[in-house]
Amino acid sequence: MKINKNYQNIEETYLFSEIAERVRKYMEQDKGAALIKMGIGDVTRPLCKSAVEAMVHAAEEMGTAEGFHGYGPEQGYAFLRDAIADYYLNTSGVKVFSDEIFVSDGAKSDIGNILDIFDKDNVVAVTDPVYPVYVDTNIMAGRKVIKLSASADNDFLPMPYPGLEADIIYLCSPNNPTGAAYDKVRLQKWVDFANAHGSVILFDAAYESFISDENIPRTIYAVEGARSCAIEFCSLSKTAGFTGTRCGYTVVPESLIREGVQLRKMWLRRQTTKFNGVAYPVQRAAAACLKDQGLSEIAENIAYYKENAKIIADTFTELKWPFTGGKNSPYIWVKCPNGMRSWAFFDDLLVRANVICTPGSGFGECGEGYVRFTSFNTRDNTIEAMKRIREIFG
Amino acid sequence: MKINKNYQNIEETYLFSEIAERVRKYMEQDKGAALIKMGIGDVTRPLCKSAVEAMVHAAEEMGTAEGFHGYGPEQGYAFLRDAIADYYLNTSGVKVFSDEIFVSDGAKSDIGNILDIFDKDNVVAVTDPVYPVYVDTNIMAGRKVIKLSASADNDFLPMPYPGLEADIIYLCSPNNPTGAAYDKVRLQKWVDFANAHGSVILFDAAYESFISDENIPRTIYAVEGARSCAIEFCSLSKTAGFTGTRCGYTVVPESLIREGVQLRKMWLRRQTTKFNGVAYPVQRAAAACLKDQGLSEIAENIAYYKENAKIIADTFTELKWPFTGGKNSPYIWVKCPNGMRSWAFFDDLLVRANVICTPGSGFGECGEGYVRFTSFNTRDNTIEAMKRIREIFG
Repeated sequence: MKINKNYQNIEETYLFSEIAERVRKYMEQDKGAALIKMGIGDVTRPLCKSAVEAMVHAAEEMGTAEGFHGYGPEQGYAFLRDAIADYYLNTSGVKVFSDEIFVSDGAKSDIGNILDIFDKDNVVAVTDPVYPVYVDTNIMAGRKVIKLSASADNDFLPMPYPGLEADIIYLCSPNNPTGAAYDKVRLQKWVDFANAHGSVILFDAAYESFISDENIPRTIYAVEGARSCAIEFCSLSKTAGFTGTRCGYTVVPESLIREGVQLRKMWLRRQTTKFNGVAYPVQRAAAACLKDQGLSEIAENIAYYKENAKIIADTFTELKWPFTGGKNSPYIWVKCPNGMRSWAFFDDLLVRANVICTPGSGFGECGEGYVRFTSFNTRDNTIEAMKRIREIFG
Repeated sequence: MKINKNYQNIEETYLFSEIAERVRKYMEQDKGAALIKMGIGDVTRPLCKSAVEAMVHAAEEMGTAEGFHGYGPEQGYAFLRDAIADYYLNTSGVKVFSDEIFVSDGAKSDIGNILDIFDKDNVVAVTDPVYPVYVDTNIMAGRKVIKLSASADNDFLPMPYPGLEADIIYLCSPNNPTGAAYDKVRLQKWVDFANAHGSVILFDAAYESFISDENIPRTIYAVEGARSCAIEFCSLSKTAGFTGTRCGYTVVPESLIREGVQLRKMWLRRQTTKFNGVAYPVQRAAAACLKDQGLSEIAENIAYYKENAKIIADTFTELKWPFTGGKNSPYIWVKCPNGMRSWAFFDDLLVRANVICTPGSGFGECGEGYVRFTSFNTRDNTIEAMKRIREIFG
């Protein structure tokens, strides 16, 4: 019996446990402190009314002989796949076929599981700073991972360069953690690179619903040629507050072919073999969010977070702290003032403002000197946190 | 870019599409035929009242600021893991620690995904006939799979033999498709083998709730030494009709260590990296099934299916057709009369009785000459199907 030794090469992420530990220690000295968490990655607004009603109705159906649903299609029910296809058409004018859409319990699962269909011997490119899942899942499989630096010099949007060798390329736009988003011109360059080199782009569109600028694509398929080189992952987690309800989707276009094989067929085989679909009530709730009344309800929640993001961004503009994100993204990536390092600024904010952020160095070497703020706290807390920061640093 | 070429070695299973095709052709000639599907693997009874109520309540909670649940623990909420631990204790007197339990969207996912933690170079043993997922998931990963024949000679319960070399051993008991179940004495021999050879047993207990004989363990942990060699997969699919609600669990004991590494920690790392937990309302529904009123409600449904199984088994006893299962299992595995081959008998039953079964040859070479019946149809349909069979073959 041999275990998978690649697991021993995964770096342990102590980011969030270290944050918790420093907060705990601080609270020992300042027991009454009213801390505000401005680093949280989870949403706080409840599910919209349409989603709740649909889930309640579906749960009640499941209790009746006529309305009971057993095993569903592994790929997801047609009613949801059609709603997702309509969503692409209505938000981006992009045609995605229902058969190219795979419903799942979330983008994180699919981003990890998609690697099943690729050989171990592929070189993987990720940006730095990076969502750790892209790296860890590939290290687990024994793949070589190279990092593309994101910094103020490239607007935090790494681009292909002559000599770059990468078989699998992860792009997350709008980005977690930097909030930077690829415009159409830059994304086109990545698509052209991938098509020229036979690479596959794994495009994480989890934050697409925060995009308002017209020149920033909400889907990679808005870019010419993407259907022959890109797999897109998306989720209702941030779009509709589904972080605890669990529903996402992955698009594998029919025309994405490598070594003569349709990747869509491989992913279908993977999912039918190792997955049994998403709960019927969850799929009903997801479909309700993507239609009619549901769409305007989720838009209200996104507008709420976007207003929070604006309050944060306006504060940093006022303080003249360079930052990205905050406009087409729930994240604001800000340079620590006075050349401070990430953890030093984290401590400073914690002690002086009782505000908790996320140190950028936790997302990779290029994150050093930055911290991440998110727009997912309540309006009141966001306003109060920014007030404290302005008072101290203004 | 290289694809995973192992996918090209997976055998396509045409079993269910071939069944559908033969049924379609038959219906063209006999349009009014009242077919009864006695081969279905899906449940038909609705969710129990407690599950529906819990899911409705949780869905409503999700729509409120106070009751909203975002990201939950990847391993599952403590309230469900504790309920599962209690279930083990109450049904089998077995102590499983809450930290050893991993809640998931179903046993099929976990059975496929667990292979992540093992090296490619392990020899895998499965029984024949076999649930195809055990084979396909390993072929996808490039592992060597050996088959252990199940036949009337060994009561359809393959046993370890001198010289057997197997690093990973799949045991499904009660078995799909044969309905055979390991008693404690035989299971002990497998556990002893695994401990002596350093193998790991992947024990699929999906049908444990159908066991009534006291000498047949409902969990492998009822056998001495299993905690150092076995991972157990279980599911609410058959226990509580969750085939469309999606909730299962996997137990990886703390004392299961290979090459100096706790497999529990590896699985935890896999799940935290590639999974984000099960929907909160689904976990609430699952917990409701495993407690108080819910337990007696699910027991009613299981009793219903068990009575169906008995009706089928009694029919075959009457006809003197040798069979296994039907007592501690929802499956009945019956030898085709007059030495017929599986598909020939399938056709004969279809045409003469308008009853659809599943040809045993679809589950492996050793399934030739057998067919599988299930107890998941309604009482009326089960009675009617058996009546027709008795009339024709009696």
